[in-house]
Amino acid sequence: MTTFTQSLDAAWQRTGSLLCVGLDPEPTKFPAALAGRSDAIFAFCKDIVDATAPYACSFKPQIAYFAAHRAEDQLEALIAHIHEKHPGLPVILDAKRGDIGSTAEQYAREAFERYQADAVTVNPYMGFDSIEPYLAHAGKGVIVLCRTSNPGGSDLQFLTTNGKPLYQFVAGLAAQKWNASGQLGLVVGATFPKEIEVVRAIVGDMPLLIPGIGAQGGDVEATVRAGRTDAGTGMLINSSRAILYASKGDDYAQAAATAAKDTRDRINAYR
Amino acid sequence: MTTFTQSLDAAWQRTGSLLCVGLDPEPTKFPAALAGRSDAIFAFCKDIVDATAPYACSFKPQIAYFAAHRAEDQLEALIAHIHEKHPGLPVILDAKRGDIGSTAEQYAREAFERYQADAVTVNPYMGFDSIEPYLAHAGKGVIVLCRTSNPGGSDLQFLTTNGKPLYQFVAGLAAQKWNASGQLGLVVGATFPKEIEVVRAIVGDMPLLIPGIGAQGGDVEATVRAGRTDAGTGMLINSSRAILYASKGDDYAQAAATAAKDTRDRINAYR
Repeated sequence: MTTFTQSLDAAWQRTGSLLCVGLDPEPTKFPAALAGRSDAIFAFCKDIVDATAPYACSFKPQIAYFAAHRAEDQLEALIAHIHEKHPGLPVILDAKRGDIGSTAEQYAREAFERYQADAVTVNPYMGFDSIEPYLAHAGKGVIVLCRTSNPGGSDLQFLTTNGKPLYQFVAGLAAQKWNASGQLGLVVGATFPKEIEVVRAIVGDMPLLIPGIGAQGGDVEATVRAGRTDAGTGMLINSSRAILYASKGDDYAQAAATAAKDTRDRINAYR
Repeated sequence: MTTFTQSLDAAWQRTGSLLCVGLDPEPTKFPAALAGRSDAIFAFCKDIVDATAPYACSFKPQIAYFAAHRAEDQLEALIAHIHEKHPGLPVILDAKRGDIGSTAEQYAREAFERYQADAVTVNPYMGFDSIEPYLAHAGKGVIVLCRTSNPGGSDLQFLTTNGKPLYQFVAGLAAQKWNASGQLGLVVGATFPKEIEVVRAIVGDMPLLIPGIGAQGGDVEATVRAGRTDAGTGMLINSSRAILYASKGDDYAQAAATAAKDTRDRINAYR
């Protein structure tokens, strides 16, 4: 069995890319060519995936964008498509789950058995026993929210506890207590490069999923310099909207490919 | 339009119950009579709902138990059934969502438009802008995790910040900053009655959703005395497994009704 971490390491080496393409499909932003299709969400995402795969190390579908449209079946089909057509590019299900153990077991089944994701994002607010059931799925990745890219992220994450901000405490818990199996990663937003640097110092080579470049305005150079490991990897730098909606016309797939290639290259300029 | 808070107040008055029946369907625990039915999850929950409705003030389906089994359509049908057959009993979708604003909008559509829930549970770790999109759905309830009933709840929620535990800081934020529209409630676990008392003192009459009695072992008397408002209400005391699986036989609905009635009466003994 290839674990998430192994897949990711291999993908970083093979593709030479740190770009994670986020799949947040919004039908109101789709090109006219897809109008009226009952599988428009799948069709759009599939085209984006096939166009951007040469420039990406992973894909990250956000489940809310499927669930709001009763499109769970299209999410299943999309992840199956990625595994079939682009083997070796891990899929992170962005779901930010967090619940007591018995419920977390159900969410883990949803992510890993139903959707066949390689990793899932989770929320640390309910503590370790809300994360443990995911780790029982050997080899799967579990990416814990640490410092999020949104303005409100500071409401709790920047509170001082034990002499440091809460997000650093979470990074310490993840690195020193919760990661015996080596399955964890952390979410750290690109809108705060200095905080990425602090987290990197705490967690060693742990993979960091970094949203917030592109539409959210994070600085690529500062992000890469802050987050890279000694090997020049260790990051999944996510871009969603800036790639998906690079063009509103029927050239959306080509425009997404160009945007993905440019983003990969901007990242690589600072590795 | 009747708001969640108004529905809840009316339900407390009309039913004389503070019991919220949690719907966490696990097919492996279903009675033999339901074996092999493709709609077993709906059928089981429907029977539980119809049997326990006379003793409950609300229902709380947990979405993971449906999603793990590709049973979103059965969840839709279940909530529609509750609204049709038991009008006036609000439905809380237990989903514990938490994400940036643009994604939270999608989760809000899922909860309130797709599933027609009256309220949804959310996670505060990402701050106010992760909660605001739910509040844009006028009249809907938004119930924020504060102090959860699981052992790991203490990992973060009990950290000291600004001279008090984080969960109290969250209660203060919810009561003093985030609740201008009056749509909020809080989750506070019954495994910590003294903490319920502290939260009640911070939040005034805000509704508290209290899991943790029944299978999780919380003390009913201590919970009720700690959490009641001056009016003797203010609480949704949740029981899931102790009611759903009161009998493993084909008398499950009758056994659930008896367990629900007993729980309601135990609660009411201390109001």
